[in-house]
Amino acid sequence: MMVGTLFSAVDAAPATAPAPTGLEDLAGRASRALGEFIDRQALLLTALSPDLRSAGAALREAILAGGKRLRPAFCYWGWRAAGGPADSPSIVTAAAGLELLHAGALIHDDIMDSSDTRRGRPAAHRRLAAEHTAAGFRGSPDTYGTAAAILLGDWSMAWCDEMVGSCGLPEARLRPARLLLRTVHTELIAGQYLDLVEQARGGGSLERARTVIRYKAAKYTIERPMQLGALLAGADPGVLAACTSFALPLGEAFQLRDDVLGVFGEPATTGKPAGDDLREGKATMLVELARRHATTSQRMTVDRLLGDPTLDENGVQTLRSLIEDTGALAAVEALIDDHTDAATRVLASAPFTERAKQALAQLAFAATVRTA
Amino acid sequence: MMVGTLFSAVDAAPATAPAPTGLEDLAGRASRALGEFIDRQALLLTALSPDLRSAGAALREAILAGGKRLRPAFCYWGWRAAGGPADSPSIVTAAAGLELLHAGALIHDDIMDSSDTRRGRPAAHRRLAAEHTAAGFRGSPDTYGTAAAILLGDWSMAWCDEMVGSCGLPEARLRPARLLLRTVHTELIAGQYLDLVEQARGGGSLERARTVIRYKAAKYTIERPMQLGALLAGADPGVLAACTSFALPLGEAFQLRDDVLGVFGEPATTGKPAGDDLREGKATMLVELARRHATTSQRMTVDRLLGDPTLDENGVQTLRSLIEDTGALAAVEALIDDHTDAATRVLASAPFTERAKQALAQLAFAATVRTA
Repeated sequence: MMVGTLFSAVDAAPATAPAPTGLEDLAGRASRALGEFIDRQALLLTALSPDLRSAGAALREAILAGGKRLRPAFCYWGWRAAGGPADSPSIVTAAAGLELLHAGALIHDDIMDSSDTRRGRPAAHRRLAAEHTAAGFRGSPDTYGTAAAILLGDWSMAWCDEMVGSCGLPEARLRPARLLLRTVHTELIAGQYLDLVEQARGGGSLERARTVIRYKAAKYTIERPMQLGALLAGADPGVLAACTSFALPLGEAFQLRDDVLGVFGEPATTGKPAGDDLREGKATMLVELARRHATTSQRMTVDRLLGDPTLDENGVQTLRSLIEDTGALAAVEALIDDHTDAATRVLASAPFTERAKQALAQLAFAATVRTA
Repeated sequence: MMVGTLFSAVDAAPATAPAPTGLEDLAGRASRALGEFIDRQALLLTALSPDLRSAGAALREAILAGGKRLRPAFCYWGWRAAGGPADSPSIVTAAAGLELLHAGALIHDDIMDSSDTRRGRPAAHRRLAAEHTAAGFRGSPDTYGTAAAILLGDWSMAWCDEMVGSCGLPEARLRPARLLLRTVHTELIAGQYLDLVEQARGGGSLERARTVIRYKAAKYTIERPMQLGALLAGADPGVLAACTSFALPLGEAFQLRDDVLGVFGEPATTGKPAGDDLREGKATMLVELARRHATTSQRMTVDRLLGDPTLDENGVQTLRSLIEDTGALAAVEALIDDHTDAATRVLASAPFTERAKQALAQLAFAATVRTA
């Protein structure tokens, strides 16, 4: 997704909005907070043993290189929605902490998918396999890289709670936030697990594809981060419920956009080789709709090509054309519009601050807009 | 290790000790507390989606099947050492919670080592690969099993903090315990990482082998669990320091015993195929000492056979004889005795309750005793 500058886009507020107070570069501030935290943790690891120095460096790269900081953005605007002050270093730290959970999940995800790259760079397990080779270690570089990256992901996930807890807000605010973080953690893994099962099953159910979306996108990316920010600001239940109502349709729109980009996106935009989702055989709504509206011969083509790890550019192009010809692409674009509209309507009546409503509307647009 | 009945052995107190108060079967109580917690979590997963039912069942088996409950035992006796009451359901729950961190680490460890079995049963990733085959899923069963088991381990580790936090002790006691748990989590992964690096490097340093021992055994298995129990009982710094002084030598003795069993132990005792540590090429103190005292031809044999994944019974027997002939086995047995004696001397002057001193002495014996 082209939302690398999401925070700044969002806070380039229209003339009617109050001027943003030093948070134009919230994404940058979140990254700096992450960098400081990781540097401390890497120092701590090196103090345990000099042999952990390169692990710290690999973690730093995995956590800091690129990334849309989408969850911190929703967390920050959940805080603002509940009336939290604009210029709070505490919420920046807490929001950035979510990225540790996310980075750990991505490191594990890349192992699970055997992805060679992440955000245009070698995935953590590939980087660590290369270190094995460079050091002249014994045994298989791939086995070593996988094992070391499992541990890297474990560290990153373990540190999320610590970074959020270090944000400096009072314990009365941190306690409910801590409970919510546990839910986020469990649901995130559940989304990954359901995705895995669905992929292994070869799809076949729109309902199940929507469940995966609910956990991976609506809850994990939008609802829970917003609620975390809102809880840290001392939100009442009405605000928390409105976060859910806003997140459910927006999450669907967001995931559907991601699915479209996974098939039609350019590597320069997505940071992944073109057609990777097709090679992995992801059971997305886009693919399910194509299958549902396919002719018999088209369905046979889908069954033959989808999930073939050796799929070449021709095969990718065949599947792209098929997804367009069945009308699945147009149907998904219409769904994205509908869901984004629904989220925008929820926003209009939500008990959020006006400034947060504006920003969330822009975030919703940025996260779901069609990119050429 | 033959410490399956460790708790009961420990609390079968000598005639001079106060009668144990309903905790004869602490291991059983810890397992029941774990079972109740896991059942709740599995229900929660199934409520998210029926597709998560089998994940819950696999987690239940991984966490509940066998296991020595060694860390809960040290945690409980850390609590008692600091004057915590004998018959507290809270400490049983908190101590049992440590097993979730441990089980998650073992699930990941079995993936990293490509171990087919754990405690005499299929390792989690093998069980899940078999589910893939039974369900007729598409793709590689092994890839699926590994991916699903990574997520299982992630869940288990994520839940440790939740179970400890649910023990019912007041927040003032839980807060320092929570900080310590973070340290345990980071150090546990550090121990795993250092072990991995050392194995890939092919060993060669007694000093580095001792660092691995310090993190994997002394700190993770003994010191930190004891300190967790002690903190939950409101221990003063003197008690916490004595936990460290006791744990460091005992941890070495404990790990050395484990190393000896990894080479000479019977599958019925260890739950692993004979010689697995040799096939994995573990850079243990035992192997380092053998290497150090080997003749040139013996060293060539070690270099040739150690870490060979296809090592057969003959090869295992050759390495066993070599380890005995170089005097490494006798040297390690002497070290175990020395370290256990040192731990026992620390106990004598530790500011622990008398009942805890007795029990810890018995635990030290049970955890390091030679088993035929």
